[in-house]
Amino acid sequence: MGKRQAYDILRPVRHVIAVDLGATNIRAARFAANDPHPVAQVRMLTLAARGREVVISRILDAIGQVAEGYLTDLRIGIGSPGPIDPRRGIILEAPNLPGWNDVPLRDLVAEALHCPVALGNDANLAALGEWRYGAGQGAQDILYLTLSTGIGGGVICNGRLLEGFHGLAAELGHMTLDRNGPVCGCGKQGHLEALASGPAIARRAVELIRAGEPSTLPRGGEDLAGLTAALVGEAARAGDPLAKRVVMEAGEAIGCHLASLMHAFDPEVVILGGGLSQMGDLLFEPIRNALRAHILHPYYLDRLRLVPAALGDEAGLIGAMALASEL
Amino acid sequence: MGKRQAYDILRPVRHVIAVDLGATNIRAARFAANDPHPVAQVRMLTLAARGREVVISRILDAIGQVAEGYLTDLRIGIGSPGPIDPRRGIILEAPNLPGWNDVPLRDLVAEALHCPVALGNDANLAALGEWRYGAGQGAQDILYLTLSTGIGGGVICNGRLLEGFHGLAAELGHMTLDRNGPVCGCGKQGHLEALASGPAIARRAVELIRAGEPSTLPRGGEDLAGLTAALVGEAARAGDPLAKRVVMEAGEAIGCHLASLMHAFDPEVVILGGGLSQMGDLLFEPIRNALRAHILHPYYLDRLRLVPAALGDEAGLIGAMALASEL
Repeated sequence: MGKRQAYDILRPVRHVIAVDLGATNIRAARFAANDPHPVAQVRMLTLAARGREVVISRILDAIGQVAEGYLTDLRIGIGSPGPIDPRRGIILEAPNLPGWNDVPLRDLVAEALHCPVALGNDANLAALGEWRYGAGQGAQDILYLTLSTGIGGGVICNGRLLEGFHGLAAELGHMTLDRNGPVCGCGKQGHLEALASGPAIARRAVELIRAGEPSTLPRGGEDLAGLTAALVGEAARAGDPLAKRVVMEAGEAIGCHLASLMHAFDPEVVILGGGLSQMGDLLFEPIRNALRAHILHPYYLDRLRLVPAALGDEAGLIGAMALASEL
Repeated sequence: MGKRQAYDILRPVRHVIAVDLGATNIRAARFAANDPHPVAQVRMLTLAARGREVVISRILDAIGQVAEGYLTDLRIGIGSPGPIDPRRGIILEAPNLPGWNDVPLRDLVAEALHCPVALGNDANLAALGEWRYGAGQGAQDILYLTLSTGIGGGVICNGRLLEGFHGLAAELGHMTLDRNGPVCGCGKQGHLEALASGPAIARRAVELIRAGEPSTLPRGGEDLAGLTAALVGEAARAGDPLAKRVVMEAGEAIGCHLASLMHAFDPEVVILGGGLSQMGDLLFEPIRNALRAHILHPYYLDRLRLVPAALGDEAGLIGAMALASEL
């Protein structure tokens, strides 16, 4: 750290642009070197339905807007969902972006803007952001889970982001927890994401309402289509027994899976991010209880920190900045 | 490597002693620096039932027997089952060694023999051995599974043995695959070990025999107690339909879990060792099929090598040698 700072003094502050490519929004922000507070930022609709070319030109637009005069000596980091190959800078598949198969986004942006670009998986980058600037600072072994529409993950082990041979590591939501369980968004069966993501929580609530369990949640045909995990969370906080049960079941699944992940990675810090983590203790308590119940040996839990994400929605952008800073 | 060899020329060949502490046998071997072929070796009964002190003095005996005149400038590496803390050199728990809780084995041996000692988990060390001298040579990201009475694991990621914060990482057999599945030897439910270890295979065969499925395997009361996975494997090879089904089910569970582990670690090489891996294609074929069926994206399998262990029973000893060589 001392070394890097001494080095930085010898040259002008380098600017970095981070881009978060989402199914709904494209976000971009400009950062001064190693400062997690953006100097400028912009958010625009992705307009994914208009096709790939439109989205790519919007990404370039967003970068241009935050770049202002800093287009020399620039570095760009891009976070993207879905399986990507960070080594070759290719989006392999983006389930929510129609037509995005095997898109060499890194090189497309690099050629358009004549500067170095890095591409990373959005959940991996959020883990990187939390490690460098958030809830995981100082640790060498970190497990990050984002609990949202999907469940993604990121792992720091031995003080390095775990990417794996193809760059596909840490898809922690797509691991089988219940072989005979519900079908996942990815088409496989019994993944954590199929048991505890936002849509899984909503679906389970609908299931119990239809089965006639008493609840203050809306009932009857059309209302149920609009039932979200956020509404279930609200009802649970207000004491609704059905909603409390659904959130508890999701927490139990997460805690059980977390025990498996502890056995695999044995981290020092577990960070839970994503929209669902905002349910707080309603969700964290069953997670902690299930983790304790399923852990192989209590020493795994010795000095373990199980904490909510510190950077919130900004983790992905800040992680993309950290990635680009290494270019 | 070039550097290390040049360095080695300047000093006498250093000898390393590796010890494999098992519930049944204690094995020890002496190696010349970085040569995986032992110069001397010994195997003796552990006699675990006679208590800790007896076992420790037998470990020292075994070391003395292979050490001969080389007790100066010696390094010792010890592999042990069960949760151990490699940082503090402590066996936390050894399910098959009565009375072995929180035993500081590393320091006990170091003080008795006045030389540096390292302690490691036996499956982790087998992974280390396969990486340095066996089926994983040259790779940076390796997953090793030992399929035997228990199912253990070892992971190399980013070119380093994954130990985790407490040194407890890579317990890959103790991860939940079927929340409602059979109870594991560790007391938890639905772990891979409960579905595909040797005892799990034998138990499943007994279950199907009792249910009246046609088979050439022995039937009736007492015979069944002696039914082992090895016998089931033999019967499967001879074409017995029940035995084939049991081995296939175990392979499916392993392949399904392997897909989860690919999603977590994304290795370049997967190495399967332990007694069950000697069943060959009978087991490997359902593993490969299930892996393909459960993988999230085909790119995970691109250039992946799924191979049997190369070092067989020697992997643990050779890994303990590799560990001690780093002292």
